[in-house]
Amino acid sequence: TIKHGKHIISPNDPHYRLWEMFMILLVLYSAWICPFEFAFLKYLPSEIFLVDNIVNSIFAIDITLTFFVAYVDHKSYLLVDNHKRIAIRYLSTWFIFDACSTFPFHTISLFFNRHGNSLGLQLLSMLRLWRLHRVSSLFARLEKDIRLNYFWTRCIKLLSVTLFAVHCSACFNYMIAERYPDPKITWIGAVIPNFKEISLWIRYVTAIYWSITTLTTTGYGDLHAENTREMLFDICYMLFNLGLTAYLIGNMTNLVVHGTYCTKKFRDTIQAASEFVSRNKFPKHIEEQMLSDICLKFKTEELKQQKILDCLPKAIRSSIAKHLFLPIVQKAYIFQGVSLNLIFQLVSAMQAEYFAPNEDVILQKETPTDLYIIVSGSVEMIAYSGGTEQVHGKVTAGGVFGEIGVLCKVPQPFTIKTIELSQILRLDRTALFDIIQESKEDATIIMQNLNQKL
Amino acid sequence: TIKHGKHIISPNDPHYRLWEMFMILLVLYSAWICPFEFAFLKYLPSEIFLVDNIVNSIFAIDITLTFFVAYVDHKSYLLVDNHKRIAIRYLSTWFIFDACSTFPFHTISLFFNRHGNSLGLQLLSMLRLWRLHRVSSLFARLEKDIRLNYFWTRCIKLLSVTLFAVHCSACFNYMIAERYPDPKITWIGAVIPNFKEISLWIRYVTAIYWSITTLTTTGYGDLHAENTREMLFDICYMLFNLGLTAYLIGNMTNLVVHGTYCTKKFRDTIQAASEFVSRNKFPKHIEEQMLSDICLKFKTEELKQQKILDCLPKAIRSSIAKHLFLPIVQKAYIFQGVSLNLIFQLVSAMQAEYFAPNEDVILQKETPTDLYIIVSGSVEMIAYSGGTEQVHGKVTAGGVFGEIGVLCKVPQPFTIKTIELSQILRLDRTALFDIIQESKEDATIIMQNLNQKL
Amino acid sequence: TIKHGKHIISPNDPHYRLWEMFMILLVLYSAWICPFEFAFLKYLPSEIFLVDNIVNSIFAIDITLTFFVAYVDHKSYLLVDNHKRIAIRYLSTWFIFDACSTFPFHTISLFFNRHGNSLGLQLLSMLRLWRLHRVSSLFARLEKDIRLNYFWTRCIKLLSVTLFAVHCSACFNYMIAERYPDPKITWIGAVIPNFKEISLWIRYVTAIYWSITTLTTTGYGDLHAENTREMLFDICYMLFNLGLTAYLIGNMTNLVVHGTYCTKKFRDTIQAASEFVSRNKFPKHIEEQMLSDICLKFKTEELKQQKILDCLPKAIRSSIAKHLFLPIVQKAYIFQGVSLNLIFQLVSAMQAEYFAPNEDVILQKETPTDLYIIVSGSVEMIAYSGGTEQVHGKVTAGGVFGEIGVLCKVPQPFTIKTIELSQILRLDRTALFDIIQESKEDATIIMQNLNQKL
Amino acid sequence: TIKHGKHIISPNDPHYRLWEMFMILLVLYSAWICPFEFAFLKYLPSEIFLVDNIVNSIFAIDITLTFFVAYVDHKSYLLVDNHKRIAIRYLSTWFIFDACSTFPFHTISLFFNRHGNSLGLQLLSMLRLWRLHRVSSLFARLEKDIRLNYFWTRCIKLLSVTLFAVHCSACFNYMIAERYPDPKITWIGAVIPNFKEISLWIRYVTAIYWSITTLTTTGYGDLHAENTREMLFDICYMLFNLGLTAYLIGNMTNLVVHGTYCTKKFRDTIQAASEFVSRNKFPKHIEEQMLSDICLKFKTEELKQQKILDCLPKAIRSSIAKHLFLPIVQKAYIFQGVSLNLIFQLVSAMQAEYFAPNEDVILQKETPTDLYIIVSGSVEMIAYSGGTEQVHGKVTAGGVFGEIGVLCKVPQPFTIKTIELSQILRLDRTALFDIIQESKEDATIIMQNLNQKL
Repeated sequence: TIKHGKHIISPNDPHYRLWEMFMILLVLYSAWICPFEFAFLKYLPSEIFLVDNIVNSIFAIDITLTFFVAYVDHKSYLLVDNHKRIAIRYLSTWFIFDACSTFPFHTISLFFNRHGNSLGLQLLSMLRLWRLHRVSSLFARLEKDIRLNYFWTRCIKLLSVTLFAVHCSACFNYMIAERYPDPKITWIGAVIPNFKEISLWIRYVTAIYWSITTLTTTGYGDLHAENTREMLFDICYMLFNLGLTAYLIGNMTNLVVHGTYCTKKFRDTIQAASEFVSRNKFPKHIEEQMLSDICLKFKTEELKQQKILDCLPKAIRSSIAKHLFLPIVQKAYIFQGVSLNLIFQLVSAMQAEYFAPNEDVILQKETPTDLYIIVSGSVEMIAYSGGTEQVHGKVTAGGVFGEIGVLCKVPQPFTIKTIELSQILRLDRTALFDIIQESKEDATIIMQNLNQKL
Repeated sequence: TIKHGKHIISPNDPHYRLWEMFMILLVLYSAWICPFEFAFLKYLPSEIFLVDNIVNSIFAIDITLTFFVAYVDHKSYLLVDNHKRIAIRYLSTWFIFDACSTFPFHTISLFFNRHGNSLGLQLLSMLRLWRLHRVSSLFARLEKDIRLNYFWTRCIKLLSVTLFAVHCSACFNYMIAERYPDPKITWIGAVIPNFKEISLWIRYVTAIYWSITTLTTTGYGDLHAENTREMLFDICYMLFNLGLTAYLIGNMTNLVVHGTYCTKKFRDTIQAASEFVSRNKFPKHIEEQMLSDICLKFKTEELKQQKILDCLPKAIRSSIAKHLFLPIVQKAYIFQGVSLNLIFQLVSAMQAEYFAPNEDVILQKETPTDLYIIVSGSVEMIAYSGGTEQVHGKVTAGGVFGEIGVLCKVPQPFTIKTIELSQILRLDRTALFDIIQESKEDATIIMQNLNQKL
Repeated sequence: TIKHGKHIISPNDPHYRLWEMFMILLVLYSAWICPFEFAFLKYLPSEIFLVDNIVNSIFAIDITLTFFVAYVDHKSYLLVDNHKRIAIRYLSTWFIFDACSTFPFHTISLFFNRHGNSLGLQLLSMLRLWRLHRVSSLFARLEKDIRLNYFWTRCIKLLSVTLFAVHCSACFNYMIAERYPDPKITWIGAVIPNFKEISLWIRYVTAIYWSITTLTTTGYGDLHAENTREMLFDICYMLFNLGLTAYLIGNMTNLVVHGTYCTKKFRDTIQAASEFVSRNKFPKHIEEQMLSDICLKFKTEELKQQKILDCLPKAIRSSIAKHLFLPIVQKAYIFQGVSLNLIFQLVSAMQAEYFAPNEDVILQKETPTDLYIIVSGSVEMIAYSGGTEQVHGKVTAGGVFGEIGVLCKVPQPFTIKTIELSQILRLDRTALFDIIQESKEDATIIMQNLNQKL
Repeated sequence: TIKHGKHIISPNDPHYRLWEMFMILLVLYSAWICPFEFAFLKYLPSEIFLVDNIVNSIFAIDITLTFFVAYVDHKSYLLVDNHKRIAIRYLSTWFIFDACSTFPFHTISLFFNRHGNSLGLQLLSMLRLWRLHRVSSLFARLEKDIRLNYFWTRCIKLLSVTLFAVHCSACFNYMIAERYPDPKITWIGAVIPNFKEISLWIRYVTAIYWSITTLTTTGYGDLHAENTREMLFDICYMLFNLGLTAYLIGNMTNLVVHGTYCTKKFRDTIQAASEFVSRNKFPKHIEEQMLSDICLKFKTEELKQQKILDCLPKAIRSSIAKHLFLPIVQKAYIFQGVSLNLIFQLVSAMQAEYFAPNEDVILQKETPTDLYIIVSGSVEMIAYSGGTEQVHGKVTAGGVFGEIGVLCKVPQPFTIKTIELSQILRLDRTALFDIIQESKEDATIIMQNLNQKL
């Protein structure tokens, strides 16, 4: 619904999102091919040279495109669609890096030098790895997206980092062997003396195999450093691995702790409750009510939900209460005929609770403190007198109970017990009286409703 | 007590539970034999073939049985025992997988082909691994069962996963060697050139040995990849191991943190209290009282128990208070003769606390705020006057103290100190007066009881 | 001070504690010698045989002694010094294990067999490892002792477990090699063909070296399994190592998390405060006051201390307040001449706070809510009028401020700023009036004191 | 601004800080050269000998300097600049260690012995490693400095420890080989038989390569212990590595947990809110308001900021409120002309909140509880009547709303909805009336202001 300036693309445009995903694929290709060319392809085959140039061109298009994409300002949280401001922001931040990583050094060098395989040129083409920053920002966005599973997003990120490290070190280690004067005294030459003549596939797999054997610290020892250059590279790589492995384990621990948190908390609560029960030798019916109430609280995530509600501003909480409870409260016999104004205020003061089957909601003779309205489920009214238990009736969805105690200030005449899983609204006596006080007419109507019932 | 429809089995039926445990055993057998047959048994011996077919038949029976087992609906938490709904639910979810994993591909192939050892057939028989989902749901259930130790349940789960990974990769790695054209250039052939002729036991142990050497990243190097196929498998296996090891460590860290939590919290609290004491140079008797009170709180888990009570609904809390305190409060001299109604209300307002031996409960001259009833243990009444300490009496279980201060509104005449470990009920003055106010008769009786004692 | 029955030793007796420490040393010796004898000493040298028998005798004495040591009952927390109950408890729990682990199987076998080196006998002598349960309970006790550093106690425990695992597996692995028919095809024989003839020291170091190389997953591969028996043992040992390593890392993570908790919390709080300051562009003097207040709170652990106080029962809190504040409050000019009773009640309602140098305690024109008494340090009274700042005086330890605002109900006439680090008592206006109300005489004295000063 | 005694340097003097940084560099040099000389340099080259002596002299200067540097007392938090107290403190703590680590043992030995390469002398020169305690205290300080990133400070610390361990063990292991009688049976001699004659560079790199291969538990096995001495050293080193690796992983886990905490909490809250929405089938507009409110709370860190404010003393909170809100409240039409005294008190009672665009602040017909003043952003006044929505006006920065409801005690006449991101001050009705009550004149002015507007 927001209009943009002329020739401006919104960053949330679905076509632009698709283009971004396509760019990510090209970045992944660049990340793989860059070290590979560096180490294994002394002379670029013409097919790869062509593909590289096409990819470069697409990145050049993307740079141009960026000048037309609006951005969200970090201070005002507003979308900026002014061409000048977009250009200034891009030119003053990442433009120079993007441009360098897209510049076709290789192609240009061919005008001066027929082979174009000098070490300097190869290093310049490594600038393309800058493009990886896009992947990093993609993952930062994915981690905050609740539609995706956090565990697997994080695992895929870690796997990508690991694979990239393995690939890079494999390529670099091979390059050291390739360029060493005596091919026999290299990690690969000691095992395959004529390694420069065998197929690219075998050489690549062997390099990756060495790399991952070192990374995972398996270290079979069938392939190992043979000269000082390789030792120096190995020292650096192993130091890096130490950090990477620790990082992987740290992340996994974090995920496991996060994943088992709920089960552990549930176990701890149930266990503490069970110990409490057995220490005090509670009768069976109290134990059952306690445990089923705790289980229900965990299943319905009542506690979590209450925490969220407490943080929200008052107006939103009122909206929620209105949406949830207004239809039920309006239909309750005790509030028939009172003004909508009053009901609106009552609703904001109410709280919804779940009760497990066979759970006591009110005990007979208790001081009345709340009025209850049933949203779903049903309850029984039971009176104990002279040792016998007598069922006095059943209240179902929409029904009210506890109103006699609260409005007439007498101890509860009945024990109220749920028959099935019930959701029940609770209204505090003090809050009820505070609200009723303001409007005498409504108070009269409520007392009439109660009298009519009795 | 719940009746089911005809020919319906309850999922909690002890006979069905036993059947389920028996099925788990068969699943474990399938999980082990599947990869083993795949790699080591080119031609199935007739004994194993027979056992496989029997197991398959039992699984077929289980599939049929599932159509007669009631299930708990996830929304209403009710048991569904309707044949049609059970069938629809099963057919629309897991039936197809269960059926495929039970289909006797091997037996049928024998009608067409005498040997039945084609790679395709072997892969089809791997479908039996689907049955493992039962083990996974078994563990999910066991983890929530507080009768079992969480640490060991979790460890056994991790051990099972590890052993299965080791077994599978050992089998798969052996199969690669077995099928490689030149047996000398394989991981096992390089060490045991005639490996195809040696006993199955040695081959299996060697494969497992290689597998676990790689999984634990020990990597002796006596057995290692010799050709590209093996290298590729090793690369995948080591990548998987990296994840598995991190997962194992993460889980163990989680368990250790969970296990040492209580000790650490206890230490932190005691340490903070000790520092507080030494910074302020408290006299010895205050220090001892503080530390013994904190130790007692941890031993009796008072704080945890209070947290659970706070979360329970009011009616359950009232039931608990009634069960715990009613007999004691009724016998207290000060409440002799008052109505049960009043006692019932008093009991809901009371709190139980533990006091360590030699701990002060009330200090002389303090403003009275609470009335105390002793549940167990005993206390001394001490008066300090003119620098000397005089013991005025002893109150034992069932006795009341602090009532003079509260009811007559005078500062406490005595210091009350526990003699032994005591559980004491505490009733707040304000709550007491609020409850007494409602019934004048009871208030008179209470004052008479007090006067009689004095 | 507690008397015991005749011939009863208290478990806290310092001599008995020393005896226990001596027993721990013997246990450590047993733990080391047991596997060592098992693997390396086919025929026990007479010196070791003698030492073993002496150690056994001492353990026999300890078993006898246990019948005379009182114990703490887990339910009543009382010391039981009844001979019969002690005996019943010991006989019904650990006696049988202790007796078996002390029984001199080796000595007795010599009567029947001159060599006494059968495998069965060696296994029976492994029963002595049962004694290790004492070390485990020692560590459980040490971990709860706050005089010892938790980090190092835990590290030493883990190191002990690791060393014992290394020692046991080294011995067991050597025994497998020793008993293998062909000494050349063993892990040690492949490197040192005549290993049975070399010195015990070299064999033991080599075994330990292999064991630790495997445990740490270094796996050089210079020593590795050569036959199926060794492979099977290696498989078990590596599986165990996986668990042990994960356990070590889990523990270390736990300790690191615990150790860096304070620094991290301090950083987080300071960082959040700094961001808050920079976002709202606070003037320098507010920023400095905020940060120095937060730093002080962390240094004095005020928040932690408050939490401990909140958990203690009322009487202990009163004792603490009386000890800390009574001398200071009695000397304050405003409470000169009032009854000790009133001061005692005031003191219980007070709270002590630290203020950093140059921190505002009261702002001019603020609504008065508290009365302050300086415990240590000093403050300045500053009045801002017409844009200039004028120092009206200085209040030092024992002085009172804020009393005019509170007692006369006028806005604070001065800004009060600390000159140096000060500890100040704070008394809430409402609490003060509640307490004064009860005694009209004291109220008159307080107002007279104030009038005299003004 | 604080004056010091004569010839006293403040520890915060920028020149002294620079000197300290220079000393750290020298410490790093000492830490590297010490083990290196010990192992590789049998006869010190004269250049290194000279440099060592210069470094020693600088450390001697630093010791002298320490007698002139003031220090902060740990009890009073005051700077001590008394020469005698500084000297006593230094002499009684670290002086003796500093002196020993600076004493030129090597130079002095030359007077007695021309070569000066005895083992005892070399061990004495290892005392220089004591200087490392400076690096440890530097890191302790850096970790608390919030200008530096905690993650990287910690990583650099761990890397330093790791590199030092690698360097030391490499040197020590080489020394063992160097001094072993038969050079062929050493870890390096087995691979390079004439290792004593090759260049220092190759020997050092090989030693470091072995050291890191072992530390990371890669253990290729190309270099490994060959004799008992080396085995013993390896055993110790691997045990140490086990601890170090666990410590590294523990630290990394700690950092990862800390780093992902915010993202995880954000995800959990959003997820719980989404589930709450979908379970109750909320209309779209409530869902959007809920989610945008939660996102905003995380972006502005409102909850964290509130927590910090709650911990600060009252006077600082008043200063902050005054700084933030006084200019806005003074300009609000409703408080035009009231005394500054009253505004000052109102401001202390106010709270600032952020509202996302299109969020309801007040709902029509709600009971009025707060008065609002807009700091930034703007809101719309909407009235729903007869099913249609009518915009009644717009309030921008500095405007007031909700005042009619609060002051006239009528239900809110309008729904107030934000148009853009707004910061709004909230003043509770009760607090407002409490403050106004005290001054009748100001109350009249406020009611006049309201009447004028209506």
